[in-house]
Amino acid sequence: MIEGAEGVLTTTGTPIGLLIRNVDQRSKDYSNIASSYRPGHADYAYDAKYGIRDHRGGGRSSARETACRVAAGAIARLVIPGVRIRGALVAMGQIEIDRSRWDWAEVDQNPFFCPDPIAAKEMEGYLDGVRKSGSSVGAVIEVTAENVPAGLGAPIYGKLDADLASAMMSINAVKGVEIGEGFGAARLSGEDNADEMRAGENGRPSFLSNHAGGVLGGISTGQPVVVRFAVKPTSSILTPRRSIDADGQEVDVSTRGRHDPCVGIRAVPVGEAMMALVLADHALRHRGQIG
Amino acid sequence: MIEGAEGVLTTTGTPIGLLIRNVDQRSKDYSNIASSYRPGHADYAYDAKYGIRDHRGGGRSSARETACRVAAGAIARLVIPGVRIRGALVAMGQIEIDRSRWDWAEVDQNPFFCPDPIAAKEMEGYLDGVRKSGSSVGAVIEVTAENVPAGLGAPIYGKLDADLASAMMSINAVKGVEIGEGFGAARLSGEDNADEMRAGENGRPSFLSNHAGGVLGGISTGQPVVVRFAVKPTSSILTPRRSIDADGQEVDVSTRGRHDPCVGIRAVPVGEAMMALVLADHALRHRGQIG
Amino acid sequence: MIEGAEGVLTTTGTPIGLLIRNVDQRSKDYSNIASSYRPGHADYAYDAKYGIRDHRGGGRSSARETACRVAAGAIARLVIPGVRIRGALVAMGQIEIDRSRWDWAEVDQNPFFCPDPIAAKEMEGYLDGVRKSGSSVGAVIEVTAENVPAGLGAPIYGKLDADLASAMMSINAVKGVEIGEGFGAARLSGEDNADEMRAGENGRPSFLSNHAGGVLGGISTGQPVVVRFAVKPTSSILTPRRSIDADGQEVDVSTRGRHDPCVGIRAVPVGEAMMALVLADHALRHRGQIG
Amino acid sequence: MIEGAEGVLTTTGTPIGLLIRNVDQRSKDYSNIASSYRPGHADYAYDAKYGIRDHRGGGRSSARETACRVAAGAIARLVIPGVRIRGALVAMGQIEIDRSRWDWAEVDQNPFFCPDPIAAKEMEGYLDGVRKSGSSVGAVIEVTAENVPAGLGAPIYGKLDADLASAMMSINAVKGVEIGEGFGAARLSGEDNADEMRAGENGRPSFLSNHAGGVLGGISTGQPVVVRFAVKPTSSILTPRRSIDADGQEVDVSTRGRHDPCVGIRAVPVGEAMMALVLADHALRHRGQIG
Repeated sequence: MIEGAEGVLTTTGTPIGLLIRNVDQRSKDYSNIASSYRPGHADYAYDAKYGIRDHRGGGRSSARETACRVAAGAIARLVIPGVRIRGALVAMGQIEIDRSRWDWAEVDQNPFFCPDPIAAKEMEGYLDGVRKSGSSVGAVIEVTAENVPAGLGAPIYGKLDADLASAMMSINAVKGVEIGEGFGAARLSGEDNADEMRAGENGRPSFLSNHAGGVLGGISTGQPVVVRFAVKPTSSILTPRRSIDADGQEVDVSTRGRHDPCVGIRAVPVGEAMMALVLADHALRHRGQIG
Repeated sequence: MIEGAEGVLTTTGTPIGLLIRNVDQRSKDYSNIASSYRPGHADYAYDAKYGIRDHRGGGRSSARETACRVAAGAIARLVIPGVRIRGALVAMGQIEIDRSRWDWAEVDQNPFFCPDPIAAKEMEGYLDGVRKSGSSVGAVIEVTAENVPAGLGAPIYGKLDADLASAMMSINAVKGVEIGEGFGAARLSGEDNADEMRAGENGRPSFLSNHAGGVLGGISTGQPVVVRFAVKPTSSILTPRRSIDADGQEVDVSTRGRHDPCVGIRAVPVGEAMMALVLADHALRHRGQIG
Repeated sequence: MIEGAEGVLTTTGTPIGLLIRNVDQRSKDYSNIASSYRPGHADYAYDAKYGIRDHRGGGRSSARETACRVAAGAIARLVIPGVRIRGALVAMGQIEIDRSRWDWAEVDQNPFFCPDPIAAKEMEGYLDGVRKSGSSVGAVIEVTAENVPAGLGAPIYGKLDADLASAMMSINAVKGVEIGEGFGAARLSGEDNADEMRAGENGRPSFLSNHAGGVLGGISTGQPVVVRFAVKPTSSILTPRRSIDADGQEVDVSTRGRHDPCVGIRAVPVGEAMMALVLADHALRHRGQIG
Repeated sequence: MIEGAEGVLTTTGTPIGLLIRNVDQRSKDYSNIASSYRPGHADYAYDAKYGIRDHRGGGRSSARETACRVAAGAIARLVIPGVRIRGALVAMGQIEIDRSRWDWAEVDQNPFFCPDPIAAKEMEGYLDGVRKSGSSVGAVIEVTAENVPAGLGAPIYGKLDADLASAMMSINAVKGVEIGEGFGAARLSGEDNADEMRAGENGRPSFLSNHAGGVLGGISTGQPVVVRFAVKPTSSILTPRRSIDADGQEVDVSTRGRHDPCVGIRAVPVGEAMMALVLADHALRHRGQIG
């Protein structure tokens, strides 16, 4: 990057490097899991693969890594300036939002990125209880991208929905991804799931619904792209769980150090970033393919 | 490939080509959708991207393409001979199986790959009604891979779960993918979702549950890999739906020709094949990485 | 592809498959090299890697494979319609052309793709002698691409010259690749090697020479892209050579069957095709990168 | 990486990041080329592509970038511990070494990495004259890898020689790459170019020559891999050359600041690093492919 007019940093066309220094590390907090495997965490699988593991801060399996994704996503948004990407938390543990109360303006008014002010209030007390009990809960995140042009993606290799699924599933602790109606589509009839079209502006269709979530046959339709993903409850909890250590001995493991009772909350900006990265990538590929 | 001892075909180490000729095409059946866009189908998105479309048989967006995946999956299974991959249909439209009745032997005893004989019976009449009414329904498929060694995958780039999500979402008509507990994990507490471990054989852990679906932190745990995906109802239905044509004119579209009332049934072997392909690929990468 | 107006085949935007059937195979010709390694050929290296080898026609190591490249190159040329790609043979064994006699029109007037009519005449008798003696000779091929716009390539990853080098070196029997002045540049002074510029048309430079061969810093300059590559003499010759067989026993090997005394001649259209493929790929990437 | 026993840094299996800070920059030295294009340099091509250029230190086109390659190559060597990689300068401008005097021990005894002590002496005075006259010269570098096992590479996609060609050509200022006999092979007969084999140790062949440079049909033969590449004379010279500026105006350009009269000398360790990177990559791929 170089400094252009009025001190604005401008790219010179080549790869951009990002460096984020971790200035708030407390490696000692993790000493008790140096050789014990936290159930539900990557500890055992990592060790089974590499035979060596940096336990401090969770090492390479830590969600700290997503900070880079958020930074990269901010740059990706510049590549697709017309596209509006917004995320929200739509469920936390047992609490689901009421979609009839959805208000994007509420998302920044509560610490949960929750678009339903009444559910957000409820989550406050709920999460407090979870934290006090040393437990954790999962969450469901929804990310929407508006003004995505029709035509991004491809019918077989490089499908937009396949890339979105990969991108969201790659976020730490995510166990499920759905697009548009998602798993709900399995229960619908063909008539109900079809997004009917009427003549719209500029020869483009006006869709009467968006069960497809903006992607059909691997290609964007011009409707908002809607992706949801499920985040499992934080696996590092204070309650002791049965496990084994690196020597195969049976142990009880409980986590100390800093941990979230609901890691899903932090996943909202990460999901937005992954949406931006996938769409920016596809916008560039589409330009290469179609001109 | 060359013919080895006793007429057995043997690979020579280099890429294998597959050619499947479509000997049962009836292109005329599709003439009425040559210039009209079927709602819920890729027709419009494809045309918006390329400006040209082969409507016959659905063209490049047709699920016929998955025949190649199944053939390739058969070869992929040879790469991971110890791994057992099996798929089953666990929901069709409104009907879900009762997991307490799960019997793998039943899967080949009914035309739906359904592991629950009672649900299978119910589906028979249900699907008949759907077909007669010219409608369609969706389905949920579950694919399981047993004897997958711990260590396949990687913590950030090349995550096993991200590649599985991409592979399954790339199957035609799939709108959601989940691993292990999936979306259900969002509702669990950290205690309930953790797969506790006890000392097992050969220094390996014996897991007390498999909420993780065999993947933690992007790496296989040695437990069965469990993936579910949702297939939307077939979008080509006999009931007329409102749409537009390539000139932007409003039309009604109904499909003639051969179509499934539940395309999800055919997705069972496709899902198995994608599981085999992803695991074979990761087994080779793992061998390269770790030796 | 679909048939468009007036029977013209038109792509629908998705991958194009090519199938070339070998209708002129004589596998028996190769029986004497089934278990013996031809010196200078890939036989031993292939067997050392895979432990299994299809000796018929040279198997996977045969230059027959380049037929696909030529076919693909014909399609690649359609992607970059303004670019003119031409190849010529500039040396055969000990005979080099005189560049002052270069005439592109001569290339199609002799069986060697030689642009120098006097050298072509000389090659005729020379190659006849080589053939009669059961020997073979190498060749140097030059491929030129005119009207390549400035800007294709990238400064580090995806350099145009690195991709050209890879493409040409991947052709069977090629042992060297050079761009512009090539190895000759090592002997020049900085003054002599610099391609000076004067103001040209439309704000573009008018270069006074083309030592760079149209690529500087991994990016095309707008000058003709000039690549040369060396093809070794055909390794399958009639003269017996000392070798070993698959059991490690010492043997003498001589080749029967159909073989060229100068495989380099056939490399001319292959080199043109590889140039077209690399440039078409970079033109698409450039459009994606820059718009 | 983590600190293991006795303070030794050990990788944890995941990607290794390298950061090299440029602590000796003198950006002002480059102010006179901020808007003028140096002939023979990437300035114009870069600007033609991106429309924006960081002229300081040559920006993204600077060979400073190769510092990372050398650092990465040091790690790559650890992946293939048995392989011995050595590079040498075999020609500088008009001076070529006498191969009968080749002595690897001499390479570290002179500032040119020259294996011929008499040529090295000659180069000293020669280069001094070049420097004083404000000019520059090119060079030819040879890199050899010994103890490379037979079998690395593949017959069509992922050829070892194609990857070596790409790697070497990607080094700044390189204009030609050859393997083994290289361009000289074009002048040889098939008899002379064939590397005959006799029964060697452990069932492996003992080759009587190495015209192939250790690669046949894209796969290593077990002989030393020998690659040569030509480096053009440094394009930044003190002698004024005719050029244009970013506005298309005719100017004279001469370079100030720090510059080498023979950038090829520095290319010796870079070439070694690229050899190590390609071989390490292929060793891992081979392990994945063959086990």
